[in-house]
Amino acid sequence: MSPRRIQTRDLLISLNRGDGARLGRQLEEQLREGIRTGRLAADQQLPSTRMLAQDLGISRGVVVRAYAQLAAEGYLLVTQGANPRVGLVSSAEALAGAGRRERKRGWRFDLRPERPDLTRFPRREWSRSLREAVRTASTAELGYIDRRGLLQVQEAIAAYLRRARGVDVDAEHVLVTAGSTHALTLVARTLLREGQKTLGFENPSNLVLHTLVRRTGLEPVGIPVDEDGLVADALASVDTRSVLVSPAHQFPLGGALTVERRIRLLDWAERIDGIVIEDDYDAEFRYDRVPIGALQGLAPERVVYIGSTSKTLAPGLRLGWAVLPTRLVDPVSSELGASTLHQPAIEQLAFADFLCRGEFDRHLRRMRASYRRRRDHVIDRLNHELPPLRIRGIAAGLHLVVELGGETEEETAERQATAAGIAIDTLSKHALPGYTGPRGLLIGFGATPEPTIPRAIHALAQAVPASP
Amino acid sequence: MSPRRIQTRDLLISLNRGDGARLGRQLEEQLREGIRTGRLAADQQLPSTRMLAQDLGISRGVVVRAYAQLAAEGYLLVTQGANPRVGLVSSAEALAGAGRRERKRGWRFDLRPERPDLTRFPRREWSRSLREAVRTASTAELGYIDRRGLLQVQEAIAAYLRRARGVDVDAEHVLVTAGSTHALTLVARTLLREGQKTLGFENPSNLVLHTLVRRTGLEPVGIPVDEDGLVADALASVDTRSVLVSPAHQFPLGGALTVERRIRLLDWAERIDGIVIEDDYDAEFRYDRVPIGALQGLAPERVVYIGSTSKTLAPGLRLGWAVLPTRLVDPVSSELGASTLHQPAIEQLAFADFLCRGEFDRHLRRMRASYRRRRDHVIDRLNHELPPLRIRGIAAGLHLVVELGGETEEETAERQATAAGIAIDTLSKHALPGYTGPRGLLIGFGATPEPTIPRAIHALAQAVPASP
Repeated sequence: MSPRRIQTRDLLISLNRGDGARLGRQLEEQLREGIRTGRLAADQQLPSTRMLAQDLGISRGVVVRAYAQLAAEGYLLVTQGANPRVGLVSSAEALAGAGRRERKRGWRFDLRPERPDLTRFPRREWSRSLREAVRTASTAELGYIDRRGLLQVQEAIAAYLRRARGVDVDAEHVLVTAGSTHALTLVARTLLREGQKTLGFENPSNLVLHTLVRRTGLEPVGIPVDEDGLVADALASVDTRSVLVSPAHQFPLGGALTVERRIRLLDWAERIDGIVIEDDYDAEFRYDRVPIGALQGLAPERVVYIGSTSKTLAPGLRLGWAVLPTRLVDPVSSELGASTLHQPAIEQLAFADFLCRGEFDRHLRRMRASYRRRRDHVIDRLNHELPPLRIRGIAAGLHLVVELGGETEEETAERQATAAGIAIDTLSKHALPGYTGPRGLLIGFGATPEPTIPRAIHALAQAVPASP
Repeated sequence: MSPRRIQTRDLLISLNRGDGARLGRQLEEQLREGIRTGRLAADQQLPSTRMLAQDLGISRGVVVRAYAQLAAEGYLLVTQGANPRVGLVSSAEALAGAGRRERKRGWRFDLRPERPDLTRFPRREWSRSLREAVRTASTAELGYIDRRGLLQVQEAIAAYLRRARGVDVDAEHVLVTAGSTHALTLVARTLLREGQKTLGFENPSNLVLHTLVRRTGLEPVGIPVDEDGLVADALASVDTRSVLVSPAHQFPLGGALTVERRIRLLDWAERIDGIVIEDDYDAEFRYDRVPIGALQGLAPERVVYIGSTSKTLAPGLRLGWAVLPTRLVDPVSSELGASTLHQPAIEQLAFADFLCRGEFDRHLRRMRASYRRRRDHVIDRLNHELPPLRIRGIAAGLHLVVELGGETEEETAERQATAAGIAIDTLSKHALPGYTGPRGLLIGFGATPEPTIPRAIHALAQAVPASP
């Protein structure tokens, strides 16, 4: 027997009787807790479903389901014909944001990036727009509508993007989606249908997007990023005809793509008849100067522009958009139509109302000021609590980067922070194969109220004493 | 030159100058109008994009785009290397409901099936539930939530389905979707990932579902239907391990699957370890007796149950569900998570509130009585206005079937009705290859207000004088 094999008794499972669903939940929670706390270590083998069911005196189906659930969350690794093994907790945490039921984790502080402050969601104003939408929707708008969205909603989004982001767009090129990730998967599927095999990604870039794109069937390929953003000249040596970029605020490093790089990137796309996908995920929150205009404005027939209300309002709304080059309007809209038919009409109308009343701009102004204060506060506390650090990516968005010496230091820091109950993200987590750039921690401040910041950064400094 | 080739001058295109987009729209509209009015007949060849662009003195891109748009709508048939041909208008009309912007068609009467009365949408009650949802949503519920849906919403849907439809379900097996079609495409993609190649369909069955499933990569295979519903014994000779059925109210023929057939169908699924997908699309509207319980209740681990609020409330809500066998909960939810992440939280909460307040049941009771009166009225007028007819499928739902002698009679009747400005659907439209069953017209009464029914049926009788 392998020394890494755990016996049932060592799992310390203790079940109160109940029906299958209840037993399953108890089993699941106790296993998850064991893995999360590190009592069950990565790579250890669990008993087979048959053996565990027998030892616990419960039906095998209950065990199968609990294992499947934990595998889906990344807590277990399941391979055909072998007993399941304990996975790396960090990967489970990373994926949690992309799907599974959030369970109480008991984090003392949540410093993960990309989390807006949902306590500030403008409930009264949104409710008012919903009421207006229900009141004024025509009966045709309550029926099956155009898969691209309602025309007046496309128009309102186009007007906003022209004005606020310099996007070159009319209503007919807007597709209303369930968010940026939805938009991205629709575009990825379209590229796949056209025969493409790969999609270029900045390296590093958002882990969740790698996973979603890989699942469509396109293979992500990393392209280096430096201080000026994506190294556009590196595209020539990569086997891809499309690339996803975050020009206004590179995720996760935080830089902006320079004008020269923008031109080189678009030249590349023009030369090979390629497509650039611009993920404008949090460009509304820019602190150093006037927001950087969208890349799309320079080449509307080469760039797919995607954005959403997930950082500006709330991810729960599932409301976003793609601005498509003419030749992609029909194929990408068809991808959407072939699954959800179209986005819900009432929420579309509510968002158009919210935009037209100026509520969206008002909310953005308020939140921009608030996030800016949080950012300043975080930088101030970091400088105060920790030895001199290289801090990057402070000009925009909801997170910044604290550089660390290398992969080992990063791993140590992450482990120490996690052990101290601080949820944190690392650069390495978002790396694709071949990554040689900086290592460090991502410190999100979107979800941390200002008064909490000193305590959170103090706790971090205590947990990660020797980080620089 | 083929006699079916149309010259540019015969297209009667007249463009006002403008930018490309404007020119494209004019071109598109004039071609569409020509096809819709029958001036351009089915199968005629249009000029090539190059020739038309040259003749009209516009850029070729504008023509390419207009042709692509019309092809997407079904007005044109485009084949590689050949000039585009004019498509059948009727197929364009059929697909319109599944996607493109509805344009004014000037129908005098709309007797298409599957259209609920949207003038009766309970705006006040829905608005109230939305307000409650916005007011009471936790901040966690405004963030990224579980891809399966919010637990309390899954619970409310499960309770409704247990009570009203006899579905054997707990909350953990419910997936909240953007409607039945969304649920179906997620299941189809999952089956495809499992290595399946085909999906059995009742023959005839809903054309739109054939199209959506084919697009996922699964090939629809028709299985005969008779008076007792799907001929379950025919499954043995078909190369498929899964089948989509509408047991409570077969679409479009209107029968219910007998108990004996239900058992044979589930036996087949058990024997080959297969999956039955139950589309319970309008079972709430049953007029002859207590609603027929869901097939799912007999074998919850063999049946995927799908339903939505599209017939009961409004398609525009994009709100539906799948009840999944345990082994499919994770894979199908992952398909959803991998594209839209999850369904919007506010609308989920609103629907749970709407259910819990009893508003949904109240609305169903009202509408059931109203649709029953419409049905009686339609039958009465048909018997009065037309020679003796075989009328089928009257016990439930939002449409009935008037049988006609054969395909020729059906085609003639459809053409006559269409020419008289009556939108109508035929059985043949929903047939898959190998169909040998009855032919006839589908007469939907969901969207036709009661006072209009006599005029609509009178107009139909005038237009289709010799139909029986």
